[in-house]
Amino acid sequence: MAGTTLAPGTLLMAGLLTALTSAQGLLTSASKSGDGYAYDFATVPFLAEITKFLISYGLLRRQRAADPGSVRITRDLRTVALFIVPSIIYMVHNNVQFFFLKYVDPATYQILGNLKIVTTGLLLRLALKRYLSRLQWMALLLLMAGAATSQINTDCSQGRVQGVLHAPVMGYVFALVSALMSAVAAVYTEWVLKKNNDTLYWQNMLLYGFGAAFNFANLAQSKVAAGGSWALLHGYTPVTWLVVANLAFSGLLVSWVMKFADSIVKVYATSLAMLLTTLVSISFFGLAPTLQMALGIVVASCSVVLYYVPPAALAAVPEAAPLEKAPSGKLPW
Amino acid sequence: MAGTTLAPGTLLMAGLLTALTSAQGLLTSASKSGDGYAYDFATVPFLAEITKFLISYGLLRRQRAADPGSVRITRDLRTVALFIVPSIIYMVHNNVQFFFLKYVDPATYQILGNLKIVTTGLLLRLALKRYLSRLQWMALLLLMAGAATSQINTDCSQGRVQGVLHAPVMGYVFALVSALMSAVAAVYTEWVLKKNNDTLYWQNMLLYGFGAAFNFANLAQSKVAAGGSWALLHGYTPVTWLVVANLAFSGLLVSWVMKFADSIVKVYATSLAMLLTTLVSISFFGLAPTLQMALGIVVASCSVVLYYVPPAALAAVPEAAPLEKAPSGKLPW
Repeated sequence: MAGTTLAPGTLLMAGLLTALTSAQGLLTSASKSGDGYAYDFATVPFLAEITKFLISYGLLRRQRAADPGSVRITRDLRTVALFIVPSIIYMVHNNVQFFFLKYVDPATYQILGNLKIVTTGLLLRLALKRYLSRLQWMALLLLMAGAATSQINTDCSQGRVQGVLHAPVMGYVFALVSALMSAVAAVYTEWVLKKNNDTLYWQNMLLYGFGAAFNFANLAQSKVAAGGSWALLHGYTPVTWLVVANLAFSGLLVSWVMKFADSIVKVYATSLAMLLTTLVSISFFGLAPTLQMALGIVVASCSVVLYYVPPAALAAVPEAAPLEKAPSGKLPW
Repeated sequence: MAGTTLAPGTLLMAGLLTALTSAQGLLTSASKSGDGYAYDFATVPFLAEITKFLISYGLLRRQRAADPGSVRITRDLRTVALFIVPSIIYMVHNNVQFFFLKYVDPATYQILGNLKIVTTGLLLRLALKRYLSRLQWMALLLLMAGAATSQINTDCSQGRVQGVLHAPVMGYVFALVSALMSAVAAVYTEWVLKKNNDTLYWQNMLLYGFGAAFNFANLAQSKVAAGGSWALLHGYTPVTWLVVANLAFSGLLVSWVMKFADSIVKVYATSLAMLLTTLVSISFFGLAPTLQMALGIVVASCSVVLYYVPPAALAAVPEAAPLEKAPSGKLPW
């Protein structure tokens, strides 16, 4: 099962990605003033795209200066055009999610979002002919189940029954469409980054250049619609800048993971980040620990082991004692 | 990993045990009149023990008549005495559970009861030197998690927050003691049945003979204490007899499984029975399906596969496609 065990470099990057993704949620809520944002949140992804573009540009220049021969760049339009697609998918996906949320409440929305774990595996197989073992399929199924379990809402304070499959059919349809689109976005990005041996910095510049453009268009359109001011940084605090920086760096980590590892590593990093956030919130922000959080963490942890630990190591028995017949004789206790 | 794959006979017996255990819950509630029992429920286990004793006696006689040479019986007091222990453990355990229920509500009690899945594995290792693979330990962990997940209560109709780890410390202490005692009972019974090659019918007669005696003592004591009538069958309906018969037959299946398979098979049968009951209640008795039930079933199913499917089969990859580098070239869709 080549490539399922993580290389140390990949493990480090995956760990960093998990930490930053988890921090994103915490930083974002820390950036709130009262129960809202004092700044225009739509500016955050835009500035993050710009940041990623500039960093990639800087790194590309440095690499050029250091060793021009090592820099491999493909400029033909056909190749460059391929990098617009992720931005387009992203834009369409946002609208799908908008409709999705019309049919299900945010809690159900979050839970159904875990479907992307399995759809990513399916698409990797269908589109990139990446075959997983039964063990790995079960691991993905368990990651999805564990993540969903930890999100079961048992808070009765709103007085409504939670955790029940009560969404309208259209809710599930949109959930599936949305899960498929996340998978398409991830698998396509992985494909386009691995398509040739161009240096990642150049590929990032293309990805984030288009990303910045689309985000700007989106921002401008909302500004025009709402007639809001163009003081993009209005209400920005140091924490807001942290949110932007964190989003930018986790984005860069994602594209590294996509190029040198795969979409499954990203899926694990983001799912485990959710559980990490829960643990941090319990430890430091007085979130009440619940049974479902504990169960979700147990199941997700098993999933990681099942996916990445070589089967031979999993199957090993400490001592070869036959399971059929027990040792008879004197009472053991 | 000898003995982990189930022999057809074992599979059949395990399936039957699952079905009967699941039926037990449904029959018991069917035997209720209104919200209570028109009969004295304490008589059910007593009559079940008598039934098991008589059936085993009949089978022993038939075996004797058919082929006397095949009947192996050990009568020495030391060996016979070993068969009292399960009844003693059972009696003590009942009292532990009584205290246990003083500290936790029935829902939490049921959920914590799943701890016996892992304690049974631990005791098999400690007492009978039965070693499990990492894969099998994870399977047991997942079975426990899956069973507990399906039992998370999200019904807010009582208006209290459910599924939260809110039991007092003593509740968890008793939960652990209780889980250990179930494990001791199971592992001891397995040990005593496998200790020698005595015919199972004879061993059953000893087990259920003592069982009947202890149950009768318990019944008599409650009768005396409550001054109830001695008309044991008062209020019995055909359904009540079905409850007795079902309990008796599942008991006989358990001792067969203990002698010819092991305690883990029993653990799986009883845990899956709980999920089967849920499915039946959803399909036929209008129980509202919940997310946690679905998640529990997914996790428990994975557990069965992980425990019993040979690791080699689990690790097999449909096609040996390297996971590191994706096939590059033309766009796959």
